[in-house]
Amino acid sequence: MSYHELERTFYRLSQLDHASGMLQWDRYVMMPPGGNAARSRALAELDVMRTEILQDPALDERFASALEANDLSDWQQANLRQMTLDWKRARALPKDLVEAQSLASTECEHAWRTLRPENNWRDFQPLLQKVFDLAREAAQAQREALSEERGFANDYDALLDQFDPGTLMHCIDPVFDRLKSTLPNLTRDILERQATRPTPMTPAKPVPVDKQDALARELMAVLGFNFDAGRLDPTAHPFSGGAPEDSRVTTRYDEHNVIEGLMGVIHETGHARYESGLPRDWLHQPVGRSMGMGVHESQSLFFEMQLGRSRPFINAIAPLVRKHLGEDPAFEADNLHALYTRVEPGKIRVNADEVTYPMHVILRYELERDIILGRSEVADIPERWDEAMSRYLGLDTKGDFRDGPMQDIHWPMGAVGYFPSYTLGALNAAQLHAALVRAVPDAGDCIARLELQPIFDWLAENIWQKGCYLEYDDLMKQATGDTLNPDYFLNHVRERYLGE
Amino acid sequence: MSYHELERTFYRLSQLDHASGMLQWDRYVMMPPGGNAARSRALAELDVMRTEILQDPALDERFASALEANDLSDWQQANLRQMTLDWKRARALPKDLVEAQSLASTECEHAWRTLRPENNWRDFQPLLQKVFDLAREAAQAQREALSEERGFANDYDALLDQFDPGTLMHCIDPVFDRLKSTLPNLTRDILERQATRPTPMTPAKPVPVDKQDALARELMAVLGFNFDAGRLDPTAHPFSGGAPEDSRVTTRYDEHNVIEGLMGVIHETGHARYESGLPRDWLHQPVGRSMGMGVHESQSLFFEMQLGRSRPFINAIAPLVRKHLGEDPAFEADNLHALYTRVEPGKIRVNADEVTYPMHVILRYELERDIILGRSEVADIPERWDEAMSRYLGLDTKGDFRDGPMQDIHWPMGAVGYFPSYTLGALNAAQLHAALVRAVPDAGDCIARLELQPIFDWLAENIWQKGCYLEYDDLMKQATGDTLNPDYFLNHVRERYLGE
Repeated sequence: MSYHELERTFYRLSQLDHASGMLQWDRYVMMPPGGNAARSRALAELDVMRTEILQDPALDERFASALEANDLSDWQQANLRQMTLDWKRARALPKDLVEAQSLASTECEHAWRTLRPENNWRDFQPLLQKVFDLAREAAQAQREALSEERGFANDYDALLDQFDPGTLMHCIDPVFDRLKSTLPNLTRDILERQATRPTPMTPAKPVPVDKQDALARELMAVLGFNFDAGRLDPTAHPFSGGAPEDSRVTTRYDEHNVIEGLMGVIHETGHARYESGLPRDWLHQPVGRSMGMGVHESQSLFFEMQLGRSRPFINAIAPLVRKHLGEDPAFEADNLHALYTRVEPGKIRVNADEVTYPMHVILRYELERDIILGRSEVADIPERWDEAMSRYLGLDTKGDFRDGPMQDIHWPMGAVGYFPSYTLGALNAAQLHAALVRAVPDAGDCIARLELQPIFDWLAENIWQKGCYLEYDDLMKQATGDTLNPDYFLNHVRERYLGE
Repeated sequence: MSYHELERTFYRLSQLDHASGMLQWDRYVMMPPGGNAARSRALAELDVMRTEILQDPALDERFASALEANDLSDWQQANLRQMTLDWKRARALPKDLVEAQSLASTECEHAWRTLRPENNWRDFQPLLQKVFDLAREAAQAQREALSEERGFANDYDALLDQFDPGTLMHCIDPVFDRLKSTLPNLTRDILERQATRPTPMTPAKPVPVDKQDALARELMAVLGFNFDAGRLDPTAHPFSGGAPEDSRVTTRYDEHNVIEGLMGVIHETGHARYESGLPRDWLHQPVGRSMGMGVHESQSLFFEMQLGRSRPFINAIAPLVRKHLGEDPAFEADNLHALYTRVEPGKIRVNADEVTYPMHVILRYELERDIILGRSEVADIPERWDEAMSRYLGLDTKGDFRDGPMQDIHWPMGAVGYFPSYTLGALNAAQLHAALVRAVPDAGDCIARLELQPIFDWLAENIWQKGCYLEYDDLMKQATGDTLNPDYFLNHVRERYLGE
């Protein structure tokens, strides 16, 4: 039967994903530098194979016949919907373009690793230009193939849809406008209030990496991470990868900055738990995959922002922090809470607090959107960057490419259209947390006792085990009773930072 | 042109090999236990894809046309010969059988990791039976398809030929007979002579793992290992893997046995240098691969036995050993030399000295050969094992499955026909060393100064850079002036152990 033949095809694709996922993890965590060229070739070839499988002309008839079947279960139907989307996306892109994108982004990203520390925008720009040129080409092709079905109004919509299916410019613009009109004032109020309080202390002494590692592992266990089916390793740019059955969480240890590192681990653990909580029966099919990146980020930010930086959680982990890292006034609960809720406009997105973070995202959104839409050029990035950082966050970034437009790995690796997911994730997380508190009224007590199972159960039921069974709007509605609504996030910010 | 289309196909296969090689390395070195089922599925699927590519009916015509081409270079012709062999081998095996073998060996090997420590032959036997049944089926299929071309006289020949192309039972039998008729007497003479000398000292205290690791890394650097294109990691069952451009050497550190661990690292470094020395222009084509396992093992044993345990090498590294591991009379050159040339019949193959090692191999060869040829059954293994260990090495192994027939990973992982390679490798290594000494008369001085480049250059020119360009007999002839001849090994043993 055609549907089952399609399942077999997508099973194969999921095994290729396993291979690519692990090879990517290895590349960032284990691979010696000399292995890079060979690894790039292998990953590019796996990409080409994936494309060839999805472009096989034999699929036309199989899809046509599967779409006529009337004996499919709800999950099979949802799976068929996801398969169809994957198939149409892949058919839209010529094989040569896929390979060119893979090679260009590999080259750009590899160069970025040395050019960024050198603050060398000049040599970086042509490599990035190539990545953006190909992204534009891919966006056009996707738009042409899918605009009717997916409702694309422009090329950038086609890129957004790849990372967050169903979230297009017309959904994002009003939400980001709301944030742009609200957050600057909110930030000013928060900074004024914060200025009346003593500056929190930082740890007096460097904290050895092995102690940070022991603490990270205990916290991950508290957060339900299963070390029999996953690992934690250090890397330069932390991420969560691997496969649902074998989570590879990474972190960066800095003897002089234990504070941020700790939240990084909590964040990545959120990503990992989502993946490992996906529906086991559908793990090797499209419907068993995680939703878009905005939902993925909602899980990491739920762990980090809603849970990790909450007062009861910080109170509860403070003794663990002191047990592993030693006694230091900085590790008292009050001080940790002040550190973890400190707001301070800064140049670096990944170090930003949750209040100023959206402005970093909006800046990048506007830049990449305008390049894809032909309103701006890669060469304009530095000037526009400086202008926006000054306007949105009051910061002077002139001449600092390293901690300016070269700070992120996303563009070098070809991820154009990805940045909005971070802020969509933050909004989703706040909205989910509000729903959790309604559904599990004693959630705060659970957190205070570090007995988090009821919270994980709620997330598993409402998000993790859904995979891609529902579309984004439906997922949020069944979990929270509402589609995406920035009020939950703004209320959360007002409550946490202004005590409102 | 058909030949170039074939090159494209085999390039793809080599990228799949990269993926599988790295996923295997990860599995043994990094993967958490819960990841095993998912990894097995991914590796099995990659195997099936490899088989499908080689079984594509479109290849028939391409091979037919490429074989008629008359404008191929010598290396292209050799490449076409290797491609043809790969193709015919793959065509001989039904896809279902390949998948069944992969799953059965994965299951058996996974179980072996817990059953071996439990000394549990009973639960292991049915799993091993399955592996052997499928090996027999595969051997029959290979024989039927290839016997005329490859000269197979029986099913076991087809298995041998997979690991050591061109080395069949009729080549091995006279060589092993020679060893069987010579080594027991030689061993007796060596043990008598050894008994007149004091027993060498072992280190008085355990040696911390980090110090062993530092020494291992310095020795690997002396042996030309490039850490910019490779790694060293601990694992339970050391091996050398990864890819030619990215060597993954593994070792096992034991605080109470620094002596054997050190030679293990030297051994695996030999494997890695062979792989990384393969002809770069042909790296992603069959002719650019390493020769069979007997040649591979000749490189590791050249490093370990011919170089590593030689008197000048031990004299030269003794100061390094003491620098890293501390002062201990056991680490004086004379004592190290006595330790590294000690002969002692024992149960465990991997711990065996080079004099008794061939008897371990011959035992396994006779057992697996007889099972494949239907002269014996898996259920007979324990009894035959005990009988042979008693006859060949004078040891009582009754009831000890753990350090008896369950000691090796090879059978559980489906590698039937592999064991002879170890002894072929030892013979090749001695023969190559004799040729090196003729070609580089001051090799001993080079070793004494740890300036090994002339030796590596000779190996690179005569073995590494040849890839599969020559067939085995021709490779040995051009490197040593002779085809496989056990006299070199026996002379080496007499010289080293009896001073003859």
